[in-house]
Amino acid sequence: MMFNELMEAVRRELPVKRWEHTLGVMQSAKELAHKYGADPDKAELAGLLHDFCKYWPTERQRLVILESELPNELLNYDKPLWHAPVGAYVVSQEFGIKDEDVLNAIRYHTSGRVGMTLLEKVVCLADYIEPGRVYPEVETIRLLAETSLEKPLIAGFDSTIHYLLTKGEKIYPLTLLSRNALIDEIRDRRMNR
Amino acid sequence: MMFNELMEAVRRELPVKRWEHTLGVMQSAKELAHKYGADPDKAELAGLLHDFCKYWPTERQRLVILESELPNELLNYDKPLWHAPVGAYVVSQEFGIKDEDVLNAIRYHTSGRVGMTLLEKVVCLADYIEPGRVYPEVETIRLLAETSLEKPLIAGFDSTIHYLLTKGEKIYPLTLLSRNALIDEIRDRRMNR
Repeated sequence: MMFNELMEAVRRELPVKRWEHTLGVMQSAKELAHKYGADPDKAELAGLLHDFCKYWPTERQRLVILESELPNELLNYDKPLWHAPVGAYVVSQEFGIKDEDVLNAIRYHTSGRVGMTLLEKVVCLADYIEPGRVYPEVETIRLLAETSLEKPLIAGFDSTIHYLLTKGEKIYPLTLLSRNALIDEIRDRRMNR
Repeated sequence: MMFNELMEAVRRELPVKRWEHTLGVMQSAKELAHKYGADPDKAELAGLLHDFCKYWPTERQRLVILESELPNELLNYDKPLWHAPVGAYVVSQEFGIKDEDVLNAIRYHTSGRVGMTLLEKVVCLADYIEPGRVYPEVETIRLLAETSLEKPLIAGFDSTIHYLLTKGEKIYPLTLLSRNALIDEIRDRRMNR
């Protein structure tokens, strides 16, 4: 499948506003990849596919979780967390995407994980700062992204955790573990200097 | 050992201010136990012992972690998290405390855990609201404690997580898991009504 056919396939799955967000993530991911030494083509591809299943009905996503090797524990958390692992699984099956780094960048774009690769960081951060994003901390996070990949990601996870705290919603443990791991990463780097 | 001898043994380990806090936790834990149907004597005992090792030097606490069956993973987190499990281990050895519920109330008084017992909730909450406590959310939490054990605990964990977010410090995963589990507990109870 050509890249523009893939784009068309994704566009059909998304409302216009989310398609514009996807184009923003592709652009930001490519820029961040250039800046921080990740593969720009993989970053753009992961950006294109990251929300592929976001607007699938709950039941369709639930079925993928139950019928794939995805952890059923996911079902205990809110639906917005499902589409990332579900999406990674579906695009591997449907479009034959086999690059594990691209699939992981899709799989962990919402929560991050402990030991994120360069590409995973780039896509996750692009999702927080693409040009269309509007939320209280976004300008600070964009500013941090000019000199670091880890600091703006920590600030991004902080904003997510803070939002869920104020809403009284459950926080996905992986989000917290990713944040803790990035804090360690920065500390370790500072100590090894 | 008589209870007043035990009190004297604890008093000797603590600075005056922390001893006053301990007396406050004993009182609040006893009151909460009466109110919510936990054992008031166990609540008072756990309150007395909960901070037994809090002022032990870092190295002494580290040694207990390394030489006991406590998870070494604790050492990756900030020192304020050590004294609870360290204290539970030390008071079981030193004073022959064998009641597992009392020991768990000491062990989990900082972080909570998934599936907290009534006594664990009482002691953890008493630590958040004893009369000497002063922090922004304390009055709200005291108010919530008049009608629920779980809601004020969630608010307490929220205040801890929020504080650590603003300080850029790591958050102990168990704190988050405890908070999530209490949210589930309240939801499940509401649905079963």
